[in-house]
Amino acid sequence: MKKSFGAKTLLYPAPVWLIGTYDKKGNPDAATVAWGGICSSQPPAVAISLRKSRYTYDNIMERKAFTINVPSENQVVIADYCGMTSGKKTDKFAGAKMTAVKSENIDAPYIKEFPMIMECKLLEHVEIGIHTHFIGEIMDVKVEESMLGEDGLPDIMKIQPVIYAPENRAYHSVGKYLGEAFFIGEKIIKDH
Amino acid sequence: MKKSFGAKTLLYPAPVWLIGTYDKKGNPDAATVAWGGICSSQPPAVAISLRKSRYTYDNIMERKAFTINVPSENQVVIADYCGMTSGKKTDKFAGAKMTAVKSENIDAPYIKEFPMIMECKLLEHVEIGIHTHFIGEIMDVKVEESMLGEDGLPDIMKIQPVIYAPENRAYHSVGKYLGEAFFIGEKIIKDH
Repeated sequence: MKKSFGAKTLLYPAPVWLIGTYDKKGNPDAATVAWGGICSSQPPAVAISLRKSRYTYDNIMERKAFTINVPSENQVVIADYCGMTSGKKTDKFAGAKMTAVKSENIDAPYIKEFPMIMECKLLEHVEIGIHTHFIGEIMDVKVEESMLGEDGLPDIMKIQPVIYAPENRAYHSVGKYLGEAFFIGEKIIKDH
Repeated sequence: MKKSFGAKTLLYPAPVWLIGTYDKKGNPDAATVAWGGICSSQPPAVAISLRKSRYTYDNIMERKAFTINVPSENQVVIADYCGMTSGKKTDKFAGAKMTAVKSENIDAPYIKEFPMIMECKLLEHVEIGIHTHFIGEIMDVKVEESMLGEDGLPDIMKIQPVIYAPENRAYHSVGKYLGEAFFIGEKIIKDH
């Protein structure tokens, strides 16, 4: 038996990403978001949503660029801090002792200490209710070399990104490996 | 030191959701996606991306509705199966022994056996490269009563949704609780 919760943004899992931008003065800022996801494979693109009132909104509109910075679970306090404070009043890079690195491909900074980062060029933005949905073309993904697996790809168990449970306001880690995509489903196909 | 991977959809975490729709004949279909996320808080809205070639594309365009069905980790084989086969050729509900339930609020079916489902009405769609980005207004969220915590909210550790690691093609479970959002970041604020 299912219980109705009504029209709520109650859906698992949500990501925890810090959006890196430069403000008008060229100072770096990082704002935490949980509303977002990959939105196209070709060109590779990702979408994130922000309210107009956020400092990052103006920064993206001006520079047409942002980074997505994936925190490791031992950086979850930093991630939470960057969602509680505003770049309008606070230098969050100083506050959280983070190092801003100018991206190679776009006009936005990434967080040196974070294990996985993505450089995005603004493609377009769509107004959806109180949020603006920013669609960014992925220009590059950079990952700490110590976080790669034997296959040369990033290892999610080393990066240990953070999962967000909306409504619960809970952060969680990533757990055990469950299986290979586009493979384990063969079991059902073979049964028919 | 970071290694560049180039312009790739390599970003952790991605969700694993099954999109429930009715086809022209009124038969239910379920298609697995990893490209998507919440996109607005008010009205509550969620975005998912699909290629035009997918059966679900036409179904959403015709019925202006879809459900998001969150599999539990013990349903990951079903989730993978529904991403490997097409409703054009296969009755996936029969194949995976799933029960289609007509949604209360929209013209799309949800999967009875899945722990968390969301009913969405199509608000708009945006073309982004090879994908169409469907933006749905969330009309209701339904969760199995046995999966609720003592606070009355869904318990992510009971639901055990699936995380996807793109490029690795790996499914993972959700791991341990890391802390409360909009709270643990206070530590850094207090330190200043």
